[in-house]
Amino acid sequence: MYFPDPISKILSNYDSESPGVKTNLSRLLMHGKLAGTGKVIILPIDQGFEHGPGRAFSSNPAAYDPYFFYDIGIEAGFSAYAAPLGLLEAGAGKYAGQIPLILKMNSGNSVSKSGGAPDQAITASIEDALRLGCIGIGFTIYPGSDACHGMLEELKTLCAQAKACGLIVVVWSYARGNLSKAGETALDTIAYGAHIAALMGATIIKVKLPTDYLENELAKTEYIKNNVPKDSLADRVTHIKQACFNGKRMVVFSGGEAKDTQGIYEEAKAIIKGGGNGSIIGRNVFQRPRLQAIQMLEELIKIYTQGENN
Amino acid sequence: MYFPDPISKILSNYDSESPGVKTNLSRLLMHGKLAGTGKVIILPIDQGFEHGPGRAFSSNPAAYDPYFFYDIGIEAGFSAYAAPLGLLEAGAGKYAGQIPLILKMNSGNSVSKSGGAPDQAITASIEDALRLGCIGIGFTIYPGSDACHGMLEELKTLCAQAKACGLIVVVWSYARGNLSKAGETALDTIAYGAHIAALMGATIIKVKLPTDYLENELAKTEYIKNNVPKDSLADRVTHIKQACFNGKRMVVFSGGEAKDTQGIYEEAKAIIKGGGNGSIIGRNVFQRPRLQAIQMLEELIKIYTQGENN
Amino acid sequence: MYFPDPISKILSNYDSESPGVKTNLSRLLMHGKLAGTGKVIILPIDQGFEHGPGRAFSSNPAAYDPYFFYDIGIEAGFSAYAAPLGLLEAGAGKYAGQIPLILKMNSGNSVSKSGGAPDQAITASIEDALRLGCIGIGFTIYPGSDACHGMLEELKTLCAQAKACGLIVVVWSYARGNLSKAGETALDTIAYGAHIAALMGATIIKVKLPTDYLENELAKTEYIKNNVPKDSLADRVTHIKQACFNGKRMVVFSGGEAKDTQGIYEEAKAIIKGGGNGSIIGRNVFQRPRLQAIQMLEELIKIYTQGENN
Amino acid sequence: MYFPDPISKILSNYDSESPGVKTNLSRLLMHGKLAGTGKVIILPIDQGFEHGPGRAFSSNPAAYDPYFFYDIGIEAGFSAYAAPLGLLEAGAGKYAGQIPLILKMNSGNSVSKSGGAPDQAITASIEDALRLGCIGIGFTIYPGSDACHGMLEELKTLCAQAKACGLIVVVWSYARGNLSKAGETALDTIAYGAHIAALMGATIIKVKLPTDYLENELAKTEYIKNNVPKDSLADRVTHIKQACFNGKRMVVFSGGEAKDTQGIYEEAKAIIKGGGNGSIIGRNVFQRPRLQAIQMLEELIKIYTQGENN
Amino acid sequence: MYFPDPISKILSNYDSESPGVKTNLSRLLMHGKLAGTGKVIILPIDQGFEHGPGRAFSSNPAAYDPYFFYDIGIEAGFSAYAAPLGLLEAGAGKYAGQIPLILKMNSGNSVSKSGGAPDQAITASIEDALRLGCIGIGFTIYPGSDACHGMLEELKTLCAQAKACGLIVVVWSYARGNLSKAGETALDTIAYGAHIAALMGATIIKVKLPTDYLENELAKTEYIKNNVPKDSLADRVTHIKQACFNGKRMVVFSGGEAKDTQGIYEEAKAIIKGGGNGSIIGRNVFQRPRLQAIQMLEELIKIYTQGENN
Repeated sequence: MYFPDPISKILSNYDSESPGVKTNLSRLLMHGKLAGTGKVIILPIDQGFEHGPGRAFSSNPAAYDPYFFYDIGIEAGFSAYAAPLGLLEAGAGKYAGQIPLILKMNSGNSVSKSGGAPDQAITASIEDALRLGCIGIGFTIYPGSDACHGMLEELKTLCAQAKACGLIVVVWSYARGNLSKAGETALDTIAYGAHIAALMGATIIKVKLPTDYLENELAKTEYIKNNVPKDSLADRVTHIKQACFNGKRMVVFSGGEAKDTQGIYEEAKAIIKGGGNGSIIGRNVFQRPRLQAIQMLEELIKIYTQGENN
Repeated sequence: MYFPDPISKILSNYDSESPGVKTNLSRLLMHGKLAGTGKVIILPIDQGFEHGPGRAFSSNPAAYDPYFFYDIGIEAGFSAYAAPLGLLEAGAGKYAGQIPLILKMNSGNSVSKSGGAPDQAITASIEDALRLGCIGIGFTIYPGSDACHGMLEELKTLCAQAKACGLIVVVWSYARGNLSKAGETALDTIAYGAHIAALMGATIIKVKLPTDYLENELAKTEYIKNNVPKDSLADRVTHIKQACFNGKRMVVFSGGEAKDTQGIYEEAKAIIKGGGNGSIIGRNVFQRPRLQAIQMLEELIKIYTQGENN
Repeated sequence: MYFPDPISKILSNYDSESPGVKTNLSRLLMHGKLAGTGKVIILPIDQGFEHGPGRAFSSNPAAYDPYFFYDIGIEAGFSAYAAPLGLLEAGAGKYAGQIPLILKMNSGNSVSKSGGAPDQAITASIEDALRLGCIGIGFTIYPGSDACHGMLEELKTLCAQAKACGLIVVVWSYARGNLSKAGETALDTIAYGAHIAALMGATIIKVKLPTDYLENELAKTEYIKNNVPKDSLADRVTHIKQACFNGKRMVVFSGGEAKDTQGIYEEAKAIIKGGGNGSIIGRNVFQRPRLQAIQMLEELIKIYTQGENN
Repeated sequence: MYFPDPISKILSNYDSESPGVKTNLSRLLMHGKLAGTGKVIILPIDQGFEHGPGRAFSSNPAAYDPYFFYDIGIEAGFSAYAAPLGLLEAGAGKYAGQIPLILKMNSGNSVSKSGGAPDQAITASIEDALRLGCIGIGFTIYPGSDACHGMLEELKTLCAQAKACGLIVVVWSYARGNLSKAGETALDTIAYGAHIAALMGATIIKVKLPTDYLENELAKTEYIKNNVPKDSLADRVTHIKQACFNGKRMVVFSGGEAKDTQGIYEEAKAIIKGGGNGSIIGRNVFQRPRLQAIQMLEELIKIYTQGENN
Repeated sequence: MYFPDPISKILSNYDSESPGVKTNLSRLLMHGKLAGTGKVIILPIDQGFEHGPGRAFSSNPAAYDPYFFYDIGIEAGFSAYAAPLGLLEAGAGKYAGQIPLILKMNSGNSVSKSGGAPDQAITASIEDALRLGCIGIGFTIYPGSDACHGMLEELKTLCAQAKACGLIVVVWSYARGNLSKAGETALDTIAYGAHIAALMGATIIKVKLPTDYLENELAKTEYIKNNVPKDSLADRVTHIKQACFNGKRMVVFSGGEAKDTQGIYEEAKAIIKGGGNGSIIGRNVFQRPRLQAIQMLEELIKIYTQGENN
């Protein structure tokens, strides 16, 4: 089977990468219900680490079970499943080969939140990713944090190790620290964070959907002077893709807090229209009854499949 | 000899682990008076490190002798004996092969307690564990401490090294630091700490028995909204098991300060009823006259052997 | 083809270096429109990292595309193109061999700017430079910063690794930290920073053009007592070359903020007259319409080609 | 020659150690005038590092010469000579094989004493110990210091390296930091520090002679409740031995400041009576005229040789 | 050719060292105009790093050129030339084998001087020293600084690496930090710093000439009680040699700021009379017109050659 056009086009943007990295990237792009479309939908589960199990899972106790995520990931046709070491490991043997896995390499937790700079602990290694059969690794950076330099240096090392083993690198770029609350999702901030991830060598960049707010005064001047379009969500998605090597890097957007399905669909349509590569969606999946979640995911996949005509 | 059902069932929860790790886990599960029941009782001796020898042992001077712990561990039929390097080493040659050993890799001490964040020093290596014939390692983390990220990163490294050598990993997860005193044993805190240990890849998780207090406001809202059962100790043990991959990870509970035997038996019954995997019991053993300790352990084993019918 | 005289003379100043380093240095000196003149003009792109993509590129959106820099670098006849990992990587496969590449090893960003000492994060490795076919690495030091010792130790390690692989080392020496604003470009400061770079083993030193201000009181006394010429920009360029082993090390000067073409030409003439080895010019290239940029570069190359007769 | 009984008995307490470690321990126990008695007397010279050469040696200028310590060590029949790298090295070639050597791995100095936590610098490596033909290493820990965790981690690493090479490990355990002045030599403190050294895997533990003061309130309660004998110095030595695995680890006591010979003899008699393994004696040797020192040492050896009958 | 007596005698003091180290030490002792006398005169150039090029060299612009130091070192008959990486490297190829080289491994700079503890950055590696054909390395320690422990640990590592490769180790021991200004050159301070260098394993110790001031109260008591001679500069040189293993280690004294020739000669005579091993002299050479410098050096060499009869 030769790859369909959207996949070949995406792979051609990564022509400095080794065949191993391209192979694993193609595994992501050719898996699940969006296979061959150039769009992806990824299931990320780190809310237990971030917020604690009771807060994350007590509304849907089925989610305490690691098999639940494998089952919903496979059944709903996700492109990949991303989680910390222990959670992946708990089902990696049983479900081996049935869904592409991304090992989240660092994690934060809210029980240890202190007055220091936002940071995460490294909780897994490249050897773990290989041992569990993963196609890639995930890593969070916090542009804006005083700990950012250290996080970038950790990413540099892990990114080089991962690529040397043919693994793809997904960077969660979430600005926080020396920023206003609104500034964390400002258009210039999200663009800056996404650009840093691209410069670090990320294969895929994961960011939040930006608002039309502008945080940095010097950036604001340029955005206004040069009339950067930013009124619609699709405009802003376009700008983020632009900030990622003029669209040459894949960008997926996270859903954030649980919300109504209509909101999720509207966001997906804007992502498609702006040229984004898909969604990474966790709480909106498992904090809903399973049947509702499956239906919502089917609708989402329909939107992404129909592409920009939608 | 094929393994009895409870052991096969537990081992099946670890099917991503190497045969070496499963072998050492089965050694723990098939040793001592609880062999084959799926329950374990572990003898942990680190009170000399934590509190000093005079405070820990002067009420029972026999306990100054490292052979004492080997002897009581073997005679009373414990599943395993866990201690810091020097203490294990002092009898590892003489008692080689007679009781499974767990090398405690990090230790705190109260003479050096300062104003800094709660932390422990790493006091042994994987090579030591292998050299002494251990089945696994023990490691303490302090969720809630400002030093927690560093402890998680140490655990990540030691856990990977241990598993690569077929050793099991027992994580002592004791929340402290940015918490109220009551919050250290709150249901949500203990569940969070246990979940973090599971996410880090722990084979067995050791926590304190939780109270029905809830520490974190955001967690509390979810617990109440979703009616998480928490009135009886057995309910709370059930929740902790749930937080450990829906029961797919072994959880043992520590006894804490010396107390009357009746209290110990009641706790054991609640652990059994809630689906816990047993006790880790130190001071309640050696801070009592030897004969009393042996009798108490026999009763405890009877309770665990009779299981949930008790 | 034997090398023309200016090249042989420069290479003779590096006679302690390995043939590999000399080979890569000659590749820089023999490439582009200034090939064989002993002068170089380098295209450095790290403004996206330093200032964010919107602020850097929205005035010329073509510059969001990594191919843009390869194209203008090749078309305008630059001697080399220098950028961080991701940006080089995005075109290194497609344009392999068509322009000498310098991998920038560390980067700062303004979103994470905090109250700490000026510093940069290491964002690439020597293996990356080799993998991408680079002729050398770039590294920024901040003499005057409290983080300077750490940066020098990082440079020491990377410099040794690079030379062991035959790569040249370009040091960006930008004084900041315990200095007045005017002091950052003072003659004595720039000379000191350039000298430190030379002492660290830099193959090529990149500094800002100095003013005639003197920052340090003890240095000022010596400059005045010994009548160090400093009135014209050419005089000051001469002094900087002197501070770099009496001219035995190559020194290139950075253009700084975008300015009018006449200013750029005047600076180039002073660099030539003072014995400098050329320009490193980024914003003045890509923050101008492409045609204007190409014309400006042609004029610049004409100035450098005509040399000191200009 | 088979070993006499006291030596065989001591070696049997170290049966988890490799033949190499037991061999070097036997070399210590079978050398000098106390050979075969199970008692040892060690010459430690680090006062030049700790206090400076003028303060340490100007009362006996012969002691400026490194050969002086080798000569007195051999002539007086010491069991071993312990010193920092440079001092051992200065005579290790000339006197090779004539007295067992212990390389002191870390050292403090009073010229650099600052407001920080008590700590020492690592000043030698295991390779140095092997290169100089040593039988073991020495390492100081400061229980009670905020730097204690770091020192324990350094000891962990060096101890493992040393044992892997068959070297014995002598730990100087000197409590200081978060303690009252009297508390540094309190019975509970010294016992705690000695116990920590044993838990870390020390072959031989070196502590100061304890007073009958009790520092820690929680410990004090237990000592009083359990009637721990502590009135005579011999009682206290007995308790310290008890704290070292019920006597299964060798413990030597340091003499401290120069004092009259009668005081030294009384201490030695108490050490013998309490079951201690000997003295480590420096300033009382070299800060006295050579002839007096030799006579004092002869008397001391007589006391140790006569053992508990004295 | 057999070595003359003074050389054989010095080498016998280093009999724990490998033949490689002794060979390189003999190369120093048998080179230049003082060859065979047991005295040495070393040219150290780190003033460009320490003070900046303009302040260091503008009074004699010839000194901007790295060849200048090689030329004067060879012509004036110095025993060795010591400098940081870049400066040595600039002429190491051209002058290979014509003068023994010592690579200075760490360097301070005054542009980055901050409020922190006095420290230096490591700016070269052992591989660099070998690659450039050096006979040894130089390393500065600051006894008295809060950074001293770290510097000692760096020295420990580099010293072991250097000796393993047969390189000699010259330690610049310059007390500063928790000391009065007068205390930095006090007799007890200089003796202490020199002794620490000897204990660390230094082959050659470099200190400033001491005054008769005594800084430390406890040391002062001993110096006075024991009548340590300190009135003449020769007495004080004698004491420093005594502090360096009773003269078994070579000690050279630095000249400090530029001064009149008569002062230099008087110091040299005192060094000879006190048993010192020579001078390390930088600014007094290159901050004087070349002819005057050469004449001064000839006179100095005459003083050293005539030895104690002078």
